[in-house]
Amino acid sequence: MFEKRKTIVQVEEGNELAPKFDEKGLIPVVTTDYDTGEVLMHAYMNKEALQRTIETQRAVYYSRSRDAIWEKGSVSGFVQHIKEMRIDDDQDCVWIRVKVEGGASCHVGYRSCFYRSISLDAKKGQLEFCEKNKTFDPETFYKGIDNPTKV
Amino acid sequence: MFEKRKTIVQVEEGNELAPKFDEKGLIPVVTTDYDTGEVLMHAYMNKEALQRTIETQRAVYYSRSRDAIWEKGSVSGFVQHIKEMRIDDDQDCVWIRVKVEGGASCHVGYRSCFYRSISLDAKKGQLEFCEKNKTFDPETFYKGIDNPTKV
Repeated sequence: MFEKRKTIVQVEEGNELAPKFDEKGLIPVVTTDYDTGEVLMHAYMNKEALQRTIETQRAVYYSRSRDAIWEKGSVSGFVQHIKEMRIDDDQDCVWIRVKVEGGASCHVGYRSCFYRSISLDAKKGQLEFCEKNKTFDPETFYKGIDNPTKV
Repeated sequence: MFEKRKTIVQVEEGNELAPKFDEKGLIPVVTTDYDTGEVLMHAYMNKEALQRTIETQRAVYYSRSRDAIWEKGSVSGFVQHIKEMRIDDDQDCVWIRVKVEGGASCHVGYRSCFYRSISLDAKKGQLEFCEKNKTFDPETFYKGIDNPTKV
């Protein structure tokens, strides 16, 4: 499904999908909510995950913490249905617009992983919660599963 | 301005900005248009770029191709004014919502770097142009400057 990268014109101005995977074989992915435009997640895909996402029209990522293919929603039920997929100029980043079954995307329990803002006013650099309440209880959904967040 | 990362609870549920920079000292950044929600760019910041972005409320990135601090708009004039800044659950990605002077963000000449969609229908994997016309002529704006896209 993926073409070889040959020239800058091909990559930037062409119709061939020629994604660039980094030295770990991954490409970053930005996931936004199809209805609200909110950024829900930032994650990664490898070749197999990108191919399966295109084929199934459901988001399949590559989990760096588990070092494995990650079918989003397989544990939580929060499957992401792809409504649109885009790629950037140099084809080293993918943007997917999704409808989320169950309405949540973040393992901490929030709708979006970006549930905190960075203050730009007096408290520069302090974080403020944009989402006041969790959408679900992660203890119930992810019981016995390691937290992917690493200190 | 940045705190040390101590515990998962601090990182995920706290009010301290404790960003995780990768092994190259970088953190990925998703840039969206404040008015339309469109994803404009995916780029990187290092510590200095993140600090200067918070302080000046203008997007400052780190250019991997030039290996240098990159004040967005310093050549093109397409300065990105920060309206909101967010960070994700494990604080390894930043989302900025911006108003763009001049209305373009992509070095190829388009409004957004994500000017092509990946077809999900019959032509699976073929790219289709979402933006039909360039917003500006890159030859004029970036004369004599190397193209950051690498094959």
